[in-house]
Amino acid sequence: MLGYAFMGKAHVNGYKTLAYMTWPSPLEPRLVSIAGRNADAVAEAAARYGFERHVTDWRELVADPEVQLFDNGGPNDAHAEPTIAAAEAGKHVICEKPLGRTADESHEIWQRVAAAGVKHMTAFNYRFVPAVRLAREMIDRGELGDIRHFRGRYLQEWGATSAEVWRFDRDAAGSGALGDLGAHVIDLARYLVGEIESVAASTRTFYPGRDVDDAFESVVEFANGAVGTIEASRFAPGRKNAFSWEINGSEGSIAFDLERLNELQWSEGTKGFRTILVSEAEHPFWQWWWPHGHMIGWEHTFVHELRHLLDAIANDTDVAPHGATFEDGYRAAEVCDAILRSAGSGARERITYR
Amino acid sequence: MLGYAFMGKAHVNGYKTLAYMTWPSPLEPRLVSIAGRNADAVAEAAARYGFERHVTDWRELVADPEVQLFDNGGPNDAHAEPTIAAAEAGKHVICEKPLGRTADESHEIWQRVAAAGVKHMTAFNYRFVPAVRLAREMIDRGELGDIRHFRGRYLQEWGATSAEVWRFDRDAAGSGALGDLGAHVIDLARYLVGEIESVAASTRTFYPGRDVDDAFESVVEFANGAVGTIEASRFAPGRKNAFSWEINGSEGSIAFDLERLNELQWSEGTKGFRTILVSEAEHPFWQWWWPHGHMIGWEHTFVHELRHLLDAIANDTDVAPHGATFEDGYRAAEVCDAILRSAGSGARERITYR
Amino acid sequence: MLGYAFMGKAHVNGYKTLAYMTWPSPLEPRLVSIAGRNADAVAEAAARYGFERHVTDWRELVADPEVQLFDNGGPNDAHAEPTIAAAEAGKHVICEKPLGRTADESHEIWQRVAAAGVKHMTAFNYRFVPAVRLAREMIDRGELGDIRHFRGRYLQEWGATSAEVWRFDRDAAGSGALGDLGAHVIDLARYLVGEIESVAASTRTFYPGRDVDDAFESVVEFANGAVGTIEASRFAPGRKNAFSWEINGSEGSIAFDLERLNELQWSEGTKGFRTILVSEAEHPFWQWWWPHGHMIGWEHTFVHELRHLLDAIANDTDVAPHGATFEDGYRAAEVCDAILRSAGSGARERITYR
Amino acid sequence: MLGYAFMGKAHVNGYKTLAYMTWPSPLEPRLVSIAGRNADAVAEAAARYGFERHVTDWRELVADPEVQLFDNGGPNDAHAEPTIAAAEAGKHVICEKPLGRTADESHEIWQRVAAAGVKHMTAFNYRFVPAVRLAREMIDRGELGDIRHFRGRYLQEWGATSAEVWRFDRDAAGSGALGDLGAHVIDLARYLVGEIESVAASTRTFYPGRDVDDAFESVVEFANGAVGTIEASRFAPGRKNAFSWEINGSEGSIAFDLERLNELQWSEGTKGFRTILVSEAEHPFWQWWWPHGHMIGWEHTFVHELRHLLDAIANDTDVAPHGATFEDGYRAAEVCDAILRSAGSGARERITYR
Repeated sequence: MLGYAFMGKAHVNGYKTLAYMTWPSPLEPRLVSIAGRNADAVAEAAARYGFERHVTDWRELVADPEVQLFDNGGPNDAHAEPTIAAAEAGKHVICEKPLGRTADESHEIWQRVAAAGVKHMTAFNYRFVPAVRLAREMIDRGELGDIRHFRGRYLQEWGATSAEVWRFDRDAAGSGALGDLGAHVIDLARYLVGEIESVAASTRTFYPGRDVDDAFESVVEFANGAVGTIEASRFAPGRKNAFSWEINGSEGSIAFDLERLNELQWSEGTKGFRTILVSEAEHPFWQWWWPHGHMIGWEHTFVHELRHLLDAIANDTDVAPHGATFEDGYRAAEVCDAILRSAGSGARERITYR
Repeated sequence: MLGYAFMGKAHVNGYKTLAYMTWPSPLEPRLVSIAGRNADAVAEAAARYGFERHVTDWRELVADPEVQLFDNGGPNDAHAEPTIAAAEAGKHVICEKPLGRTADESHEIWQRVAAAGVKHMTAFNYRFVPAVRLAREMIDRGELGDIRHFRGRYLQEWGATSAEVWRFDRDAAGSGALGDLGAHVIDLARYLVGEIESVAASTRTFYPGRDVDDAFESVVEFANGAVGTIEASRFAPGRKNAFSWEINGSEGSIAFDLERLNELQWSEGTKGFRTILVSEAEHPFWQWWWPHGHMIGWEHTFVHELRHLLDAIANDTDVAPHGATFEDGYRAAEVCDAILRSAGSGARERITYR
Repeated sequence: MLGYAFMGKAHVNGYKTLAYMTWPSPLEPRLVSIAGRNADAVAEAAARYGFERHVTDWRELVADPEVQLFDNGGPNDAHAEPTIAAAEAGKHVICEKPLGRTADESHEIWQRVAAAGVKHMTAFNYRFVPAVRLAREMIDRGELGDIRHFRGRYLQEWGATSAEVWRFDRDAAGSGALGDLGAHVIDLARYLVGEIESVAASTRTFYPGRDVDDAFESVVEFANGAVGTIEASRFAPGRKNAFSWEINGSEGSIAFDLERLNELQWSEGTKGFRTILVSEAEHPFWQWWWPHGHMIGWEHTFVHELRHLLDAIANDTDVAPHGATFEDGYRAAEVCDAILRSAGSGARERITYR
Repeated sequence: MLGYAFMGKAHVNGYKTLAYMTWPSPLEPRLVSIAGRNADAVAEAAARYGFERHVTDWRELVADPEVQLFDNGGPNDAHAEPTIAAAEAGKHVICEKPLGRTADESHEIWQRVAAAGVKHMTAFNYRFVPAVRLAREMIDRGELGDIRHFRGRYLQEWGATSAEVWRFDRDAAGSGALGDLGAHVIDLARYLVGEIESVAASTRTFYPGRDVDDAFESVVEFANGAVGTIEASRFAPGRKNAFSWEINGSEGSIAFDLERLNELQWSEGTKGFRTILVSEAEHPFWQWWWPHGHMIGWEHTFVHELRHLLDAIANDTDVAPHGATFEDGYRAAEVCDAILRSAGSGARERITYR
């Protein structure tokens, strides 16, 4: 594992928990080695989480023959090189989103890793919220009919800070709210509705001197004829982690809000919205958890995601369609790039994939 | 009054109710005459609502010396000529929205009526929801700080119908969801946030053979630097009359949903959203109604709106800023036109006012 | 009409509105005469609302041959004598709740009025909320199966006041939160679930020196085997007019909150709760109002209630079961009395009806 | 650990997770041995969760010198003997709720264990929901003023089943919804408001042939003058795990629903209810988790609870007041017994503690 901060903690917890909660697990995770630049901090992380070894140079992870899966939870500018190197050393790889800082970088990562023949996953963990998987299943079964609209927004409130965070730096992050939050919305839009064909967008940087976007707004057109909006902002006071979306189809509508992640709102036809408390034994992922009504949290998405990856490795099955591959990471990046292009050009930008 | 259907009923109820509920009323409304094309139906409407006379040609209303206020609740293609004629005959005028079918037509109505020197009001009744007025007051007092975002959507579900309705006909209506629903969103965006400077939009017509938009999506940029989205659709199952909006400012956020019109959600700073049940004695318009918690409905917006107009007439005060004038009707039409232009051109369209 | 304050205003609005909104009305209401103790105030009320006459002694109403319906919106200690006198003078009567201050007084009113052979109605207006009527229809159709639980609470917040209000005086009001708020809950419990067989209760007076209850709590057992709670308080900060109830049956559950009176929550079986926005053309009372999603308010309950009474008078039909008769007023009073007895005795009190 | 089913799984997850999430933990949990009657099942549980040993007789746990903490997650009729034996063997003990099947049995457990001088905890895990702890802190700081009302209900829907479950058997369980669900409500009522002085109650068994209560309803009076209701049912369709409560004080109100366990509703004075998304760094327990808005689940209550117990053991601090001791387990049982007595006698029953 590369990185021991926010994402590292979430991934470690995923591996440790899946081992006994998703019993029997297809593979027994072994925490071999963790890499981080600060020697003391990485040593403490290793002690805390039970890694066998800790190193300060990710190259040692790549060179370590006992490492079979390379988990990259580092900042965006540490995605490409280590991930490619690990794959080319024959390790399966999972990388935090956004895959690269640009579509070019993402494409390069995808191509090189795919050529290495290992399993690869972009950590779009919200695909693994039970309510989101249920939504996908409902759409696949045709319960919403033809999709007409997708409206997704990811709102947070912490942008008005003078703190120096790599997420505010274009070199390290690539973009601001777009790559950090918007990429999640774009990925779910693709997962639930289909490919995005064009975008028309505006961006804003509210905080003086910052060189990434604090917010963006976009109109999106899908290949299947649906149309909608995708937005994200770090300047929405009162919205802590409000990733919410709504889909309208010819046969009904569904709506979701990450701040109430155990609930899916469903209007069957025009009957009005029903709150599905997604926790029944037959709901996705719930065979591993608790009696209905005993809710789970945000961190559980990583348990599900990493279990899915171990399954794919153990049984040599595809990560797609429910897991996001590096191709999905690349495709989200194309949409992000098009949003930035449109914000600059003022034109509706068509998205083409290489 | 011209028209006795949906809007006619709402306006008549407004006049009758304000007379004793907003006591003492600045003017005593007298229902002099009502016009409609169907002789039997207009006769029954006159009997039902207590009009002294009923006519089948609106020109008789214009010629009637006892008519002092001309209330136009007819379809969009019956807005321009009667309204202008009434104003030029010296009558004050109120006209349903959208004012005209295009910015050109709206501009013509505004200019001709303004030249006549009478009071004029575009019936953007949602300005007169107590929660909306409260929102405006909060913004005026600076309680939200600098506005960063406006997100407004007006969703309905009845579009998938083969019924022949003038609202689906471009000649009669001008546009579809845009002029019918979107105009309301645009007006509140202007009322609460300020002028819109540019739009980038897409439209869709889902129903075969229809020549107006069933839905539109747009990114909007405001003159004050705020940015957001405006959307409307008649193809959102489960959404009956869901006009909802959210505003994020530097000092807090507010949110509203017409389906729960007595509530305003307010996050003071980042404290989280509080439900203000807008019904306290000190809240806008509540001096006329009931003890707190005894909620009012949609129709009350017309009571407040028409009371405001009678005030302006009786005391020769301005309809603006809380009432929408014909200038506001025209400005909303410019934004509507720009949305259609952008949908066609694929370019972000700048809005200029004549 | 006796009384021109809160209830008088609500009833007058009901008569005036039903005349054109529930078109054609079975009877054309004529506002003949209004009585009140303050000569100036009653004169102004007559001018405001359009009564033909105004008097300071209710006996003049009783003696007035043109008065055919006597509407008593006075305080509780002015219910018995005028209502009985009016009925005995051959006038139909409607009286605000609670019918009398005790079961004895209520029984006397009911018996004397019934003997006079006129129509009588206790103004339990919440039976005429569309969502409540819909609930009753669902129960009648068996959609909830056997009823197991009723939980009703009516919470307000204004009790901590030194204001001198007749509602805080036992002689004038009979009881406090019990007769004012609790009576509504009891009536809906009877309307929706059935007769109450026993109660076990506690009361509290929080405000020093007051001689009525500020709050009560009770366990109720129904004749059909259902069991639940009925509560009310004037000391629940944040609850403006929060009359909420929930019913659990063998086939599903429904829930309601007066602060969102246009909504009924329904769990069909164990599917989870769906928000029915009660405003479809086929919903109770909605043939008279607006397109769906255009919500109505608290005052509309009186329009429906008085329309129902006029129907009964015009067509000589029964006020029951959807309207509350004086027998219903009496029966609610028996439950209220039993709650007070139980609070005093500490024993579960059985309710018997005379 | 005794038991490997629902509660065993929740406790094991607690120990394993606290070790690295509440870093540094005061004690490093070591999973020494697990007991269960089914040899195969307990062997698999040991393998799954990583226990060093597994046994089929709890006496072996008691005799095991390496076991320092005895965790009893067995059915109610397996609480007394093993727990007492473990304590008398010098082990600290935690026992699932209800502590005993009756107040007598609970008292015996408490007295014998307390005499042994070990730490003891009743697993009332809902004290360890962050929103509940926050509520307690607000009350302690006086932010609600004098408490007037507590209304608590715990509703589930699964009671209408022919499955043979020990929870439906009086010998094994002691009581039905009362001890299973009601005990939780009673404990939080005591934790948040104070001692309960009297109860008046009714119970119902809806399912034929069952000898425990399926539901109970009660009015409760608190020593501090507050009054309210406590209810529970297994026959509330649509309510999965709906433990909700509301507290009204002289300075404000708070409300909670376990189905949305990350939220606390707070009306500061009469301002109306604000949703506190309990996930800020300064909120209880959140120093161990994620950035705000990244929600936790039901299982986390056990992490917090067991961490609290390890703290008490490591530092020899009191389990009370935030943890429930066996005295708290006993006191809840006295209230439960009084509810059953009142249901039988029809009298309001006073609660006295030995």
